[in-house]
Amino acid sequence: IFHVTWDAEAAEKGGYEHFMIKEIHEQPKAIRDTLTRRIVADSDDIVLDDIKLTAEDLKNIDKIYIVACGTAYHAGLVGKYVIEKLARIPVEVDIASEFRYRDPIINERTLMMVISQSGETADTLAALREAKNRGARVIAITNVVGSSVAREADDILYTWAGPEIAVASTKAYVTQLIAIYIVALYLARLNGKMSVEEYRVIRDELLNLPEKAEEVLKRKEEIQKFAAKNYNHKDIFYLGRGLDFAVALEGALKIKEISYIHAEAYAAGELKHGPIALIDKGVPVIALATQEDLYDKMVSNIKEVVTRGAKVLGIAFDGHEDILKVVDQAVYIPKTLPLLAPVLSVIPLQLLSYYAAVERGCDVDKPRNLAKSVTVE
Amino acid sequence: IFHVTWDAEAAEKGGYEHFMIKEIHEQPKAIRDTLTRRIVADSDDIVLDDIKLTAEDLKNIDKIYIVACGTAYHAGLVGKYVIEKLARIPVEVDIASEFRYRDPIINERTLMMVISQSGETADTLAALREAKNRGARVIAITNVVGSSVAREADDILYTWAGPEIAVASTKAYVTQLIAIYIVALYLARLNGKMSVEEYRVIRDELLNLPEKAEEVLKRKEEIQKFAAKNYNHKDIFYLGRGLDFAVALEGALKIKEISYIHAEAYAAGELKHGPIALIDKGVPVIALATQEDLYDKMVSNIKEVVTRGAKVLGIAFDGHEDILKVVDQAVYIPKTLPLLAPVLSVIPLQLLSYYAAVERGCDVDKPRNLAKSVTVE
Repeated sequence: IFHVTWDAEAAEKGGYEHFMIKEIHEQPKAIRDTLTRRIVADSDDIVLDDIKLTAEDLKNIDKIYIVACGTAYHAGLVGKYVIEKLARIPVEVDIASEFRYRDPIINERTLMMVISQSGETADTLAALREAKNRGARVIAITNVVGSSVAREADDILYTWAGPEIAVASTKAYVTQLIAIYIVALYLARLNGKMSVEEYRVIRDELLNLPEKAEEVLKRKEEIQKFAAKNYNHKDIFYLGRGLDFAVALEGALKIKEISYIHAEAYAAGELKHGPIALIDKGVPVIALATQEDLYDKMVSNIKEVVTRGAKVLGIAFDGHEDILKVVDQAVYIPKTLPLLAPVLSVIPLQLLSYYAAVERGCDVDKPRNLAKSVTVE
Repeated sequence: IFHVTWDAEAAEKGGYEHFMIKEIHEQPKAIRDTLTRRIVADSDDIVLDDIKLTAEDLKNIDKIYIVACGTAYHAGLVGKYVIEKLARIPVEVDIASEFRYRDPIINERTLMMVISQSGETADTLAALREAKNRGARVIAITNVVGSSVAREADDILYTWAGPEIAVASTKAYVTQLIAIYIVALYLARLNGKMSVEEYRVIRDELLNLPEKAEEVLKRKEEIQKFAAKNYNHKDIFYLGRGLDFAVALEGALKIKEISYIHAEAYAAGELKHGPIALIDKGVPVIALATQEDLYDKMVSNIKEVVTRGAKVLGIAFDGHEDILKVVDQAVYIPKTLPLLAPVLSVIPLQLLSYYAAVERGCDVDKPRNLAKSVTVE
C-alpha cells in the first residue's frame, strides 16, 4: 500500500460534515487551478511544461489508447468523445485490468494516455508498462507529483485537485476532465484540425467553468429534495446519450460506492433492447439531457420510462423549462458548450449520491469494502 | 413494426412449455447449421458464398467497426476479442444508437460489421447507412434472408438459427458467435496471420461445439437447483475477465429481460474500483472462470466477494474441481479452446434466467415492456 502524508491543514474538513461534501465544493477552485497558466484568456497558446510531444511526433501517431480504472475510466470515456471530435484521431478506451491481459494491438504509432488520481493504481501502472514495452509513447494524467505513473510516463499533465481524502472521487474526476480538454485542444492545434477562432470559443468557455460550477453548487437544495424523497429505493437508473451517457456511468458509480443503492447507467437508445424491462412503478430515473443535438431523442426516451411509471429527475441546461412537461423534477445547470457539459452535469449527481448516503446513514467518506487507491490487483 | 410470418410448424413449441426453453435446446442444431458447408472437417477452405471480400480488399482495411444493439452488441464484444486475437486487425465495438450520433471516424479503409437477428433493427440499419455514406464496406450478420440489413450490406453471413420467437434472444446469440468465429478465421487466413495448422485446431474444436452444447444442456438440473434457491433475490451480479466478461454482460441482460431481477455484470478487475460496495451478505454472484490464463485472477476476485458474504456460482471447464474450494456451487462445461468458451458458457446463464423467470411466475416469452425487434428508434 502506498502512503501519502498530506498537509494536515489541507486534510481538515473546514467546517463541512464530511470530506466528500468539502471536496465537491472545492471543484470550482480545482477546475481553475488545473486550467491556470495552461489555458490563458487573451492568449492563443496552450502551455504544457511536462508535455514534449511535437507536431512531428504526432504525425507518426495513428491511434490513442486511454486506459484507466473506475472513475478515471469514466473520465476516459469523455476523452474518447472529445479527442475524436476535436483532433479527429481514433481513440479507444479500455479498463486497465482488461487491457493488460488482452494482448492489445499497440505499437510505436500508438499514443497511450493513462489516468490515475493516485498515480499508483496497480492495473493502470501495469498497463502503462505493457504499452511502453510495445513502443508506445505514454501521457499520464495524475494528481500526485512524483507518483509511479508520473515517473514512468513520457509526458505528464498534472491535475491540480489538491489532496482528495474521501474514497469516492469527485474533484479528481472533474480535474481529469479538464486535463482531457486541455490535451484534446493541444492535439487538435498540433495537427491543424482546429482554427484559432474555434480554439478561442472553447478556451473562453473553459475559463467560465469555475464560475458556472459555483452556480451549480448554489442550487444544491433541489438535489437534496430529490434525495430526501428517494433515498429509500433499492434501485436507480441513469440515462444519457453521447457525453451524457459517460456522465451517467460516473453518476451511477458514485451512488453505488457510498449509498449502496444498486444504480446502473444505460445508453438511452439501448433501453428498448432489454433494460426497460426493469422499469416499474415508482423507480427513480435520472435523465441527463444536456446534449442539444440529442435533446429530442432523450425526451422520447424519458417518455418511454415515464409511461412505465418511473419517477424522473431531468438534468438540462438553463432555459429548458419544456423538460418539465415530461419529468417529475428538473435540475438546471448553466448553459455551456455541450462538449463541456460533463464538468457541470456531474455535480448534481455527486450531490445526489452524497445526500442519499447521508439520509441512509452510511459512512460517506469510508464506504464499506473500498480503499482510496487500489494498489494491488 | 416489421411483421414476419414464420412457418406455423416451426413456430410450435414442440412439447416445451415456452419458446425460450425450446430455443435454448435448439442451440446445438443452430450451431451445426451455421457451420455447415462453411467450415468442413478435412478441408482447409472456408466457404462463404455471400462474402466477396478479397485479400486485396483486406489490404486496404485498417480497422473494423462492429455496431449492434442489445444481445447482438454483446456478440460484438466477443467479436472484438476474437478478431483482434486471430486476425490482428484493430476492432472497435459500438452501440448503434451511440455510433450514429457520434460523428465516428470511419472511411473507405474501415470494414463495418453490423449484427442484427431480425435485420430490421432501426439504429443498426441507420448505422449501416451512415457507414456506407462514409465509404466503408459493410458485412452483415443476420438471421433473416432478405431483411433490410441483408439487402443493404456489401457482404452477408447468415446465421442459421431458424425462427426465434421468444423475445429474449438465445439461439440467435450463439449463432452470431459462430458467425463471428467464421469471419475472424476468414480474415486471419486472408491476411496471412494464421497458418493452416492453427486453422485446423480451431476448425476441429468449432465442429465439436454442437455435441458439447448438448452436454451442457444435459447438466441443466444444476442450474435449476441454483435458480430455485436464489430466484427471490432482487439483485444478482455477474463477473468475468476477458471473454468471460463479454458473456457475463449477456447473462445479466438475459435475466433482466425476463425475470426483472436487477442484474449487472462487471469486469472482475473493476470490482475494487467501486462495485464491490454493493456486495453484501447473501447476494448471489455468478463468476465465470473459463479463461485459463486468467483463472487464478478470477479465483482471487471470487475470494473478495465471498469474504463480503456473496453466494457464488462458479462456471468453469470440466476438471476444475479446485474451484469448489471458493464457490458455493459450480457448474461445469466441457473443455474447449478458451477462445470458443462463450458458446458453451452462455448456456447455463440462459438456463438460469429461464428457470428464475419461471419460479417468479413471469411471462417468459413476452416480457413486460419489450418487443422482439426494435424497428423504431
